[in-house]
Amino acid sequence: MYDVIIIGAGAAGLTAAVYTCRKKLKTAILSIDVGGQTNLTSHIENYPGTGPMHGIELMKRFQDEAIGFGAEIIMGKANKADKIENGFRIWLANGETYDCKALILAYGKVPKSLGIGGEEKFMGRGVSTCVTCDAPLYKNRDVAVIGGGNSAVEGALELATIAKKVYLIHRRDAFRADEVTVEKLKSNSNIELALNTIPLKVIGEKNVEGIEVENIVTKEKKELKVDGIFIEIGYVVDTSFVQHLVKVNEKKEIIVDDRGNTSCPGIFAAGDITPVPFKQTVIAAGEGSKAALECYRWLTGGKGAVLDWTH
Amino acid sequence: MYDVIIIGAGAAGLTAAVYTCRKKLKTAILSIDVGGQTNLTSHIENYPGTGPMHGIELMKRFQDEAIGFGAEIIMGKANKADKIENGFRIWLANGETYDCKALILAYGKVPKSLGIGGEEKFMGRGVSTCVTCDAPLYKNRDVAVIGGGNSAVEGALELATIAKKVYLIHRRDAFRADEVTVEKLKSNSNIELALNTIPLKVIGEKNVEGIEVENIVTKEKKELKVDGIFIEIGYVVDTSFVQHLVKVNEKKEIIVDDRGNTSCPGIFAAGDITPVPFKQTVIAAGEGSKAALECYRWLTGGKGAVLDWTH
Repeated sequence: MYDVIIIGAGAAGLTAAVYTCRKKLKTAILSIDVGGQTNLTSHIENYPGTGPMHGIELMKRFQDEAIGFGAEIIMGKANKADKIENGFRIWLANGETYDCKALILAYGKVPKSLGIGGEEKFMGRGVSTCVTCDAPLYKNRDVAVIGGGNSAVEGALELATIAKKVYLIHRRDAFRADEVTVEKLKSNSNIELALNTIPLKVIGEKNVEGIEVENIVTKEKKELKVDGIFIEIGYVVDTSFVQHLVKVNEKKEIIVDDRGNTSCPGIFAAGDITPVPFKQTVIAAGEGSKAALECYRWLTGGKGAVLDWTH
Repeated sequence: MYDVIIIGAGAAGLTAAVYTCRKKLKTAILSIDVGGQTNLTSHIENYPGTGPMHGIELMKRFQDEAIGFGAEIIMGKANKADKIENGFRIWLANGETYDCKALILAYGKVPKSLGIGGEEKFMGRGVSTCVTCDAPLYKNRDVAVIGGGNSAVEGALELATIAKKVYLIHRRDAFRADEVTVEKLKSNSNIELALNTIPLKVIGEKNVEGIEVENIVTKEKKELKVDGIFIEIGYVVDTSFVQHLVKVNEKKEIIVDDRGNTSCPGIFAAGDITPVPFKQTVIAAGEGSKAALECYRWLTGGKGAVLDWTH
């Protein structure tokens, strides 16, 4: 039996593990990947203290530190969780079970889909939600990136170094990404901006051949010939397997107090799975630290203040 | 006129500067020091991503990044702040003034005092609140550290490598510090623990000659002969110069919502000056990021949700 199982191995989960392990709690991290959404950023400049680096490299450092302090990493997908005497049991998709005294939920979000024709058919075969993972497949080919935030803009910049041509399709006329990042777009002659533009459907028989788009101002429709499509429009939470245990808000995010307490004593949550504003690596790391320290306080008999649901 | 003045240059303030500068806001950091409380930790192992290092080195990195993105650092003590048309004005102790559209308060806490005889008399002349700063003065001499948290324990460990003998005086029978850190105490033969013990007064004529202590269980009083005394019992906030602008709680901490908004539109706060739990570098950094992004949202006309004071 573990003292703590942390579900999720992004910035929040790995930081939580550093903190629980330093408190000598027997800690397992259960996750389908290591690194979470930070992995998807090719060039993190705003996690202070490390200097710029790839998100994968930064998360590798977090992982090495968590393991160095004693965390055990279990790869797998949790698909059931329930209370047992003195703790909680987690069932993995493969049937394995793990028991713990306390649980920290830090598994973040899953990529949002467009909901357009052809998207599901080609998902993983020409349609991707991860530039970092799949960009190398499109050397000297044409691709489209859909979205307007940092991930989309940085994805387009990364693809521009590999692909022949990159369309950046955004439904608005300006980008939400950092000014510094947006400025870099302009120095790339192989990036073509398609602003005020929405995707209508993915075109292709066996492979992706293009994407049909519409300019929402001129109402003009056209097909962009591309070999790959990267959807970078954000993420949603999937908290379905724990909704019988903890309260969630209207976005299905797990509600926590300012110490990571959920509505269920012994279950804590941190990072993008909660309503914490401004999804950033340094913010998720801070929240992971809070949840871990509150978990330690609760396990050691401190009055783990359960969230006061009247506010 | 600056877009943003950040008061304080610890983990919260420097991270806030990284974020406001990346948003192209003209940013000044106004502070009496650079590094804040993180400076006082000789060996930070729990700020993820960097590996262990001295707090001063970590804060130097934060500073270099903030300056690299364009932050200007103004050394000085703010002793008055008020509203002006379209923003705020800050008066320094030396009479200089600086104006800004928005203000981020991130100047943390000041060291708590014991309130015992001789403490004030010898402050800075044998009584110190900063092991990191003053440990080198006590090479091969005897010192006492007072406190039971990470700072006190780590302070004792640092002093043990320099001083001849280190008394660690703690009013309880166990330490609040991390287990990992507490274990290191035991391998140091020149550290003597004085548990269940409180300091009564600092003894000395021209210089510190010792400290009178009492064991609160046995009621035994005695004098420990020491040349230096390090007070490591925590910090308090001093928000007196902004209390006419922002609401504070019963501890005088500045009340913020989950995005760093204070009760005054255009003033944000982050880190140890707020009620954020678990004072940690990574937590302060996360909070600094939130306040900066909320400040950017407010300056650019986003509906900067003012804290709802009904809860």
